[in-house]
Parts: sequence; structure tokens; C-alpha cells
Amino acid sequence: MRQNVIFDNDVLRALTEVLSELKGNKVFFLTDDNTQKLVLPYFNTLLEECQASVITIAPGDVNKNLSTVEQVCLALQKGGATRNSVVVNLGGGVVTDLGGFAAATFKRGIRFVNVPTTLLSAVDAAVGGKTGVNFGGLKNEIGVFCEAVAVLISTRFFSTLPLEEIKSGFAEMLKHGLLKGTETYQKLLSFDFTSVDNDAFLNLLTESVNVKRVIVEQDPTEKGLRRALNLGHTAGHAFESMAMERNKPVPHGYAVAWGLVVELVLSNLLKGFPSENLYGLAQFVYSHFGAFYITCDDYDSLLNLIHHDKKSVSGECNFSLLKNIGEVEVDCRVDDDTVKAAFDVYRDLMHI
Amino acid sequence: MRQNVIFDNDVLRALTEVLSELKGNKVFFLTDDNTQKLVLPYFNTLLEECQASVITIAPGDVNKNLSTVEQVCLALQKGGATRNSVVVNLGGGVVTDLGGFAAATFKRGIRFVNVPTTLLSAVDAAVGGKTGVNFGGLKNEIGVFCEAVAVLISTRFFSTLPLEEIKSGFAEMLKHGLLKGTETYQKLLSFDFTSVDNDAFLNLLTESVNVKRVIVEQDPTEKGLRRALNLGHTAGHAFESMAMERNKPVPHGYAVAWGLVVELVLSNLLKGFPSENLYGLAQFVYSHFGAFYITCDDYDSLLNLIHHDKKSVSGECNFSLLKNIGEVEVDCRVDDDTVKAAFDVYRDLMHI
Repeated sequence: MRQNVIFDNDVLRALTEVLSELKGNKVFFLTDDNTQKLVLPYFNTLLEECQASVITIAPGDVNKNLSTVEQVCLALQKGGATRNSVVVNLGGGVVTDLGGFAAATFKRGIRFVNVPTTLLSAVDAAVGGKTGVNFGGLKNEIGVFCEAVAVLISTRFFSTLPLEEIKSGFAEMLKHGLLKGTETYQKLLSFDFTSVDNDAFLNLLTESVNVKRVIVEQDPTEKGLRRALNLGHTAGHAFESMAMERNKPVPHGYAVAWGLVVELVLSNLLKGFPSENLYGLAQFVYSHFGAFYITCDDYDSLLNLIHHDKKSVSGECNFSLLKNIGEVEVDCRVDDDTVKAAFDVYRDLMHI
Repeated sequence: MRQNVIFDNDVLRALTEVLSELKGNKVFFLTDDNTQKLVLPYFNTLLEECQASVITIAPGDVNKNLSTVEQVCLALQKGGATRNSVVVNLGGGVVTDLGGFAAATFKRGIRFVNVPTTLLSAVDAAVGGKTGVNFGGLKNEIGVFCEAVAVLISTRFFSTLPLEEIKSGFAEMLKHGLLKGTETYQKLLSFDFTSVDNDAFLNLLTESVNVKRVIVEQDPTEKGLRRALNLGHTAGHAFESMAMERNKPVPHGYAVAWGLVVELVLSNLLKGFPSENLYGLAQFVYSHFGAFYITCDDYDSLLNLIHHDKKSVSGECNFSLLKNIGEVEVDCRVDDDTVKAAFDVYRDLMHI
């Protein structure tokens, strides 16, 4: 079950080695319009060498749907992909999640390699075997658990990203820090977004990805412990879905950052999570991510979205909460009134 | 990996027990228009007892596609299905394959029970974890390997089936007999389609399903041995696809029966499979299934379809062949000219 995760800023050499080991009879690169333009040229010699076909999809979460999956599968079919072929998912979370799902279901599964080009996909989406697409207005509603045969993690493509994208991924690193312990977490709180050193950042990222790997390896299909990784995501997904409904989508990581605030409020109310750590996080989130605006009129819609979450058990909301930094408890059932109380505190902390 | 397969003609009691063990928070029955009318009423008391929701799809292979999967997932979503819910696939191969795929991908996988109502799905589709739908003109081109948590096998619903359906399933039993050995195979050749005893038939069916189970348990994801089960299917799928292209679809089992003839010709040419056994099978197939009409003008199209088969390795056709009854060899590469020669012999044997 151990996934082959390679941390290396010399991505061209690393990917060349991986593909030569896999010996696929055909190689397909999946990109979106952005990575095709900004990142794919870096791999030109490799593309020629292995006579790869390139499949390009429209970018963004709005295209993370079954219709795009069909488009990818059709391109694989027309390109003569067999069970022995390999798909390289080169892009952010949409490309790795959707490309992983397409590869995992095409001919009942062909091998795929993830090369995340955004911080968010590097730290979260590309590792751990969760693939899928949005459906019926809900995030990642259709998918499978299927591991990439290899994941190549680097920071070299991040320089092409807007700061917003970096911050979005950073929220997942914050979550990993909260799960890991004070030392890791404090390093993150003092991170300087204005001057990033690629190799130092790769070290921080390696530490963060390994938090996730350790958890996923113990519980690949999310029967228990893995739900720890949902920290911030139950409330976060509800914010994200609500933003979609408002036709003002927000970056995933921003929603997670706001979700972390809500869920640390719940942790504080129900598990004794220290108030000073809650305030510290809320301040960091507010200053770097701003706030997601809600009024008490939104509470019922948010609760409804939470009840529809994959993690929900009938009737009550189901959260992963913290007793302290580094001490997680999964499957915490919380009644609706307590969640509403947490939204109240969230609005206070976010100055709404 | 051992799948819970229950052989019992008292299906109502057996399913009641299974569902009570699974303790799903919601139960969904997936049927098609036919099984909703002919089979579902048999479960009425159970449906009420567990307050099950019923999802009904249009019948037939033409509806085994992603659009029907979307329809099922939407119904699950609207019906409030969670990861703890259970889907009961009540129907033939289309329902079990498609329902299995929908359940395996909805919220990245919820549990499903297969209750095959046709011989074909009982003997083949419902056991072994292959789920999927047709795509881009190819059979089962999109899908995943995912085991039902339980499969209830009975013969009690077969009396509602036309003889054609029984024969279609019987072709898969023939294949299992050919893989198992002379004793099992001979019992099948002397089967009397005109007077079927339900319980005696269940015994024969049990023997047949167990041939498949033993193979699947040793190789669940078709890395090697499981390809033995493709016997008859490489040529058979090509016939089936060609029939679809001609807008004159044929029952899957009929295509397999004709495919068995082609592949035993190849076995005879390349592996020394005894001629008398080839003639015996060809005669049985011709008298019960008739022939699929092809001329030498169809050979290139058929070869093209074979090359697009999931099992194909680039360049050559890949078959599972028999040295004798009970002695299979997987991954036999065969060049196009030899396949064409086998089509010639097939036409002779089928009096075309």
C-alpha cells in the first residue's frame, strides 16, 4: 500500500526514470489549458522521447465533472490506450483528482502518475488515492480510492502560481501541522509568503505530505483514522458549496482555512482545545485568508450541506476534532444547535 | 477477498438476513422496468419492513451507459444515501454491472448486494467484482473492480425468463465446464432446456459459479489466471460489438457461444485441443444458438474490435486458449492471419 512518493525539484529526470521503470506501451499526459501552456514545455524532450499523447481539459473546479471524464476517456480510447498504458496527470487538484478517476475506471483501471503543479495538489490531492469529480452540486460525490503508481512532488512550478493559490495549499499544510504537533505547526505560523525559497519550501512540504502519508497508509479507505484528515473539511466543504451556490466560488484551501476556524471552535467547546491556540489560528486565518461572510440566515443551508457530506452519519453532524495540537479525535457527533453556536463564534472571530 | 455468495431458492429469507446483518441506515433497491414488474413484488414485505427506496432504470444493454449511472447516483443523492447505505441490485447483468459501478463510485463507494434474476447474471455478472458500463461503442469500457458484500444466487426467478435468456446464461456455464473438466462439461452437454427442475438446476449452477469463484479469489484484479475466464469472450465481444454496429444486438451469451467456437478452433490450431471436442461443441452451439453470420469482408472489422479489447496487448490479439478440456493457457498471442484462418473454420462449422 506504500505509495511511491518522490520529493525532487529535478522533476524532468525523476519523471523520466519513473516512466522508464513503468514500461507503459503508450504514455498520455493530461493537462489543463494552464499547465499545457506554463508547465508542459518543460517536459518537451521527454514528450518526444516517449511519443506521448497530450490530452488537455478546461481548467477549474466547474469542469471537474463526469462530462470532462468522458472527454478524457474518449481521448484515451481514440489514442489507443490499453491496460498497459500510463497516464501522467500534470496539474492541480482538478487534473489529479479527475485524471486519477478517469484512469482508475478506464478499462477498469490503468496506471497513472501524479505530477502536482500547485501547492494544494502537492500537499493534498496528489497523495492518498482519493480520486473523483463533483456531482449534483456536491464536491467529489463520485469517485474511487485508487493510488497513483507514483507521485512526483516539487516546488519548482509554484513560481507560476498567484499568491492566492499558494495560500490555498498552505491551509492544508496548516491542517497537517495541527494534526502533527506544536513544532511543525509553529514553523507554519511563522511562514513568510513574501519571500519563498524553493528548496527550503520543499523541506517544509515534505514534512507536511508525510503527515498525510503516515495516516493514509494506516487507513487507506477511510474506515477510521484517516478521517483525521477531514479536520476543517466538514465545515469547509459546506462553505465551498455555499460559495458555488452563490456563483462566487472560493479557492478550496480558503474554505478549509475558514472550516478550520469553525472546527477548532467546536474542539474548544466540546474537547477542551486551548482557547489561546484557537485565537492564534483565527488571527492567522483572518489576516491571510480574510473571512467567508455568513449571517444566521445561512445556518440552515450550511447544516443541510454538512448533512449531505460523505462523512455524515444519519441525523447528526460528524466532525474530526482536536483535544490539543497533535491530538485528534475522529467521529465526533455534534448536534445542530452546537454547530450553530460555533458559527456564532466563527463570526465573532472573523469580525463579521 | 472471499465474497459472500449464498445459494438459496428461499431468496426472501436469505436477503432479509443479509440486510439485517449489514445494518445499513438506508436501503435502495435498483431494478429495471422488467424486474420491477416481475420480481420486485416478491420482496414487498421486506421493502416495507426496511422502508427501502426503489430506483428503476430502463432495461437492456443500450442503457448500460454513463448517463444511466448518473441517473442512479442522482436518485441515491436525492434519497439521502450515505456511506452507510446499501444498494440491492435486483436484475440481470445490466443492473448488477451498472448498479455495482454506481455504488462503487458514489461517495467513493457504498456497499451493494447483488440479487441476479437472470441465469447470465447469476452465473457470471453478479460474482467476481467486475462492475462497469459500455462507452464509446465498446463493452464495459469504463468500470472498476469492486466486490458486492453479498450475492444471492437462486433459480427461482428464471421461470419468468424467455428461453433465449436461459440459453444466453448457459453459454457461460459451458465456458466454466470447459475450464473445469470433462465431468462438469458433459453434464452440461446433456442438459435438457425443455424441462428444467429449479432445485436440480441450482445444483448445476452452484458448481458452475464455484468454478469462477475459485479463479477470481486467486486473481481478483485480472493480473493473470483470471484471464482464463475470458475464454470465448475475446471473439465473443467482437461479435457482440459488430452486432451492435449492425443495429441488430445479440444476447451476450450467444456471442460468447459463437466466441467459444472461434477460440476452440484457435485452441485446436495452436494448442492441440482435440478435434472431436471442438466438433462436439460446435454442434451443440449450432443447434442451440444458431450462427452469427459473417463473411470474409467482416474480418478486418472484427480484428479491429479485438485489438480494442481491454485484454489486448499492443500489436497482437491476446486469447485464453485450451490445450484440452480443463487445461487452460492465458495470454496466448495470436497473429491476425491465424485469427482470420479461425474465422474461416468457424464459418465452416457454423454452415455459413
